[in-house]
Order: sequence, then C-alpha cells, then structure tokens
Amino acid sequence: MRTIWWEDGTVKMIDQRQLPHEVVIAEFTDHREVARSITEMYIRGAPAIGAAAGFAMALAALESTATTREGLLNDLEAAAETVRAARPTAANLFWAVDRMLGVAHRGTLTDADAVREALVAEAQALADEDVEISKRMGANGATLINDGDTILHHCNTGALATVDWGTALGVIRMAHEQGKRIHVLVDETRPRLQGARLTAWELQQYGIPYDIISDNAAGYFLRTGQAHKVFFGADRVAANGDVANKIGTYMLSLAARDNGVPAYAVVPTSTIDLSLPDGGHIPIEERSPDEVLDLQRQGRPLAPAGASARNPAFDVTPHRLVTAIVTENGVVRPPFGPGLQAVVAAAR
Amino acid sequence: MRTIWWEDGTVKMIDQRQLPHEVVIAEFTDHREVARSITEMYIRGAPAIGAAAGFAMALAALESTATTREGLLNDLEAAAETVRAARPTAANLFWAVDRMLGVAHRGTLTDADAVREALVAEAQALADEDVEISKRMGANGATLINDGDTILHHCNTGALATVDWGTALGVIRMAHEQGKRIHVLVDETRPRLQGARLTAWELQQYGIPYDIISDNAAGYFLRTGQAHKVFFGADRVAANGDVANKIGTYMLSLAARDNGVPAYAVVPTSTIDLSLPDGGHIPIEERSPDEVLDLQRQGRPLAPAGASARNPAFDVTPHRLVTAIVTENGVVRPPFGPGLQAVVAAAR
Repeated sequence: MRTIWWEDGTVKMIDQRQLPHEVVIAEFTDHREVARSITEMYIRGAPAIGAAAGFAMALAALESTATTREGLLNDLEAAAETVRAARPTAANLFWAVDRMLGVAHRGTLTDADAVREALVAEAQALADEDVEISKRMGANGATLINDGDTILHHCNTGALATVDWGTALGVIRMAHEQGKRIHVLVDETRPRLQGARLTAWELQQYGIPYDIISDNAAGYFLRTGQAHKVFFGADRVAANGDVANKIGTYMLSLAARDNGVPAYAVVPTSTIDLSLPDGGHIPIEERSPDEVLDLQRQGRPLAPAGASARNPAFDVTPHRLVTAIVTENGVVRPPFGPGLQAVVAAAR
Repeated sequence: MRTIWWEDGTVKMIDQRQLPHEVVIAEFTDHREVARSITEMYIRGAPAIGAAAGFAMALAALESTATTREGLLNDLEAAAETVRAARPTAANLFWAVDRMLGVAHRGTLTDADAVREALVAEAQALADEDVEISKRMGANGATLINDGDTILHHCNTGALATVDWGTALGVIRMAHEQGKRIHVLVDETRPRLQGARLTAWELQQYGIPYDIISDNAAGYFLRTGQAHKVFFGADRVAANGDVANKIGTYMLSLAARDNGVPAYAVVPTSTIDLSLPDGGHIPIEERSPDEVLDLQRQGRPLAPAGASARNPAFDVTPHRLVTAIVTENGVVRPPFGPGLQAVVAAAR
C-alpha cells in the first residue's frame, strides 16, 4: 500500500493521525479537501506533501467546469493558491504545484480536456517517480551505513513521509535489506510524536530493531558513544546547504557535531530550493499550542488548566553541522553550493 | 505549604505525581516508604530528595527498637543503605544521609534516645536550612537577570524541587519579586514532563508569564534571539564543574553556547560532589521505558503495541558549556575547580 494514490478520480491516503493503532483510508474528490488534509496532517513529510499537491491540482482540473483552456488555467491558478497555502515550510509543496502548472501551460495542450488529461497523468507520474527517487536515495545513502551501526533518527522519514519507501528511513531500510545489522534510536519527536507513532510502526514492519527515546536523550546516547550516525530528512534545503527540518533537528545536529558523529540529511532534489541563499529565508510554520498541551497520561491532561504554549514546527540546521546531503542524484558534501546545483541540474 | 515537612513523627509530602490537577499529601512513618517515595518520584528535585533522606533517617531512628546507642547506630547504618539506594544520581541524597549519620555518631550523644532526639532535630534543621539556602541562591542568581529577559528553563527547579522556594526557578522568582519583568520559556521536559506539569503550575501561582515548549524547540528560540538566558538546576556537580542534570540539559546547553546565550546552573553546595574529578564518574540512572511509552492522546497510547524504549533520566553537561554555577555562597565562574572548593568550604 502506498501512502497516497489516485483511484478513479479520487485521491486516497492513509490518515496518519490514526496511526499506529488503525489504518484508516481517507478519500477526497475536492482539491480544497486535499489542501486541508495537508494542513491537518492526515499526510505529512515533504515528499508525500508534494505528491498530495500534485493530486490536488489534478482534482482541481477535474472539478473545474471551464470549457475553454483559458478558463481552466484561471481555475487552476486559483486552486494553486489554495494548495500553496496549506503549509509554508516544505519546498515540495510549491515545487509540485509549479510542476503541475508548468504542464497545464504547455502550448501543445490546446483544449481544456487535453489539459485535464495531462494533469492527471502528471500527478500520477510525479507519485511514481517519488517511489523510484526514494529507492535511489536509499541506495546512495546506504553506502554511508556500516554493519553494526546504531543510527539516531528524527521524526518520520519512511514510506509514510513519501509515496513509498522513504528518505532517511528509506536509507536505513535499504541498508537493512542489504543485510547490514542496524539498531535505530527513534527520537519520539515531540510535539506530534511522529517518531514514536510512525517510525516505530514502520520499523516493526521491516523487522529492524529499535528503541524509542525522548528527544532529550539523544545527546546522552551520542555522548556515551551509543549512536554512530544521525539521519534525518528535510522540508527545505537552501542553496548553501542550510536544512529546515522538523523541530529538534538543530539541537540533534549540534549534539552529533559535539561528539564527532556524522549527521546526514536525506532529500529528493525537489526539496532543494536554490532560490533561497540560506536557511534564514525559509518560512517556519508555527502550529497550534494544542499540539504541545493536549497530551494525557491516565486520561488526565498534563499541563495545568489555562497553560499557554508556543509551537514552532521546524527549525533550521546550519550547513556547518551537516556532514552530507544525500539525494537521488548523489551524495553532496561541503561546500554544499556547487554540489546542490549539480544534483538539481541533473534532475531536470 | 512546604514540599515536605515533619509533623508529630510523620513525614508529609506533596505527591507530585498528582500535580498539577490535585494537591495530594502523602504521609509516611516508615523510612522504607520514604525511600520508595523517592524512587517512585512522589518527591523529586535534588534538594527535596536530600530533605526527604534526612527525614527518612529520623524516622528510622524512631522505628528502631534498639535500647542501646550501638544497637541504634547499627539500625541506622542499615537504614542508610536503604535510603541511599532510592536513586543513584542526586548528590543531596548521599550528602543528607552522611550528615544524619555524622550527627548520630557524635560522641556527646551517649544513649539511644539522645541520638533519636538529635536526628529528629537535625532533619528539621536540614529542611529549614534548605529554605534559607534557596533564598540566598535566589538573591545571588537574580543579579544575573535583567528587566525584560526571556529565560529558558529546564525541568522543575522551584519550590517543588526543594523544601520551598527553589534553585533555578527560585532565582527567577526572586528577580520577579524584585520587579523585573520576565517571560519564561518552559521546557516541557520529557519524559516525565516536570516542566509542563510542575514548573508551569508554579509560574501560574507566582504570576510570572510563560509559554510551555517542546524540549525540541529550545534551539529554535535560542537561534532566533527569543531567549536571553538559560537556567537549570543540577543533581550533581563534579569538582571540575561538569553538571549532571535532568536529561536534555546537555543539548540545551549546546544550543545556548552555539548562540552566545549564557547557561547557568543553580545549586546548593550540597549538590557539589568534590570527590568526583569530572562528570564521567557520576552514575546515571536509567528508569522504566514505560515513562517514555505510556503517554496518551485521546485515550489511546501513542507508541505501537510492543514498542521498546530506553530512558536515561540524566545527562552530563561538560563544564565548558556552563557559564556560571550559582550557589548560596556565591556565583562560581570558570575555571570552576577553585571556586567550587571555596563555596563548599564556606558551607562547612
């Protein structure tokens, strides 16, 4: 099963809010609903968000009642605004919308139905490519993993963060399938616990041994020599190699560097945003305080009534803390600028 | 109300596992039960654990049926072993037991009842001194806080971590009472959420504005200039200034240093263990995986069934990351060795 797929004019996706206890499939036929599913995190993970955006644009084309090419293009531009507004940080959302609009504007598509047909095919192609790209990232990244490694992993970057297979977790899975013995320390990844809920669930299915840890404990395991590599994905990579990723990645990367442990970001080239000179330009989403406050133990909320909270969803890890950036087109090492340009150019 | 007190031969303490929703008072008349209350974290925080250990030894003296001084001293040595075994990391536990045994062995106490009477008085004195020491720490530390500061705080170090008033949170409270406007970013402090449960509850009572954050988010706030100081307590400080404190303190201190933000440890001199040359010698407690795994949202556990976890409760922050160590006898700055010796000598 894929994380998201197209079936007879309907977008279907695993509702990841229900995992690990139930596999619930959500179905959408309206691009606004798909945008909402991204905002509300039915689906998350930069590549999966990209695929969802592609399918949302295909839905928008089918929804439009325009009979002319121009009318349809107008409707698609409006839909693009809705989809782009779903979440601000992941580059893949904007990349996928732009890719879909680029197809829609092809001069060879002279009538509305031709545009519609091309967009459905393009969204499907984008999703299929995502799986193939994930496996190429996996093969490139697996060269960095040794038999016997304990790997510290942040957030979820597996099949659930992509259409299938994964980015950083896909690398771990590939190394496991190559026969390397791996143990994973799973950052629980507060506040939404993508590690404890999703990564642990995936690792159980792959038969890879793991322990969930509080994010707070990563430094302890690095400092006591119990973790040999750090792997994470990213939501956006700037031209200089600065990496925006799930909140906590910056502190994790600091702890890796302080102990001489390599820290690897694994991203498809669609996550690389060469238009931004550095990470300071990446918009950081701040989500609802409820994500921090609503946890319970024994049926009781954990914070006092009336407590307030802040909840930035991402942080920027400066490139000086990143050992290498693994992409489907190769492993980029510092200085990142030229290498990132090369792997992006190779993807075009 | 104090966190722990003595009343007619009974030790009473707030059961902190029930906070912030209920103030439940636990009562014990057996030193083994007090030791268990430390292990199970009815009471926590290094100074509060020290006070509990003192009262436990007083209870042990009253429990003993020995009629001779020698018989009572034998029973007290056995009780000391039980109390010392309650938790391994906080220096104050061992310090308090040793202080009580020192009193018990005084040559001037020639019969068992004199020893009993002296131990009850000493436990009470230890608790009373803890409050006075907390306020001196507060006054010393408040000089480091400016009007308008936003302070990042880890774990709970307030009245609940001591007999009353607090260590790091006591400093913040003192600065607040001096009229300085302060905002606190409260690390929720996974896995047991002492920040979200206890520190937020205390700050509400003191009228100090705060926001709870995921521990993961501390780096974001430091890197974006939204936190001006970092304050935490400690469970043990080695002779070179290495600090063992609640898990996550090391990563927080790394993030502070990476952004030029000062990081202050606030401890009574009873937390300083000059017998250990550095933090590598401090025993680190690993607690039950259930503390990591048992969180729920909407009544459902968050990790998959059968998930495994690791749960180290403390980490060591190397002295190079600590800006200063605030004690009741003054603020110690690097190189820490001579200064720590001086403040400990001044306490004798």
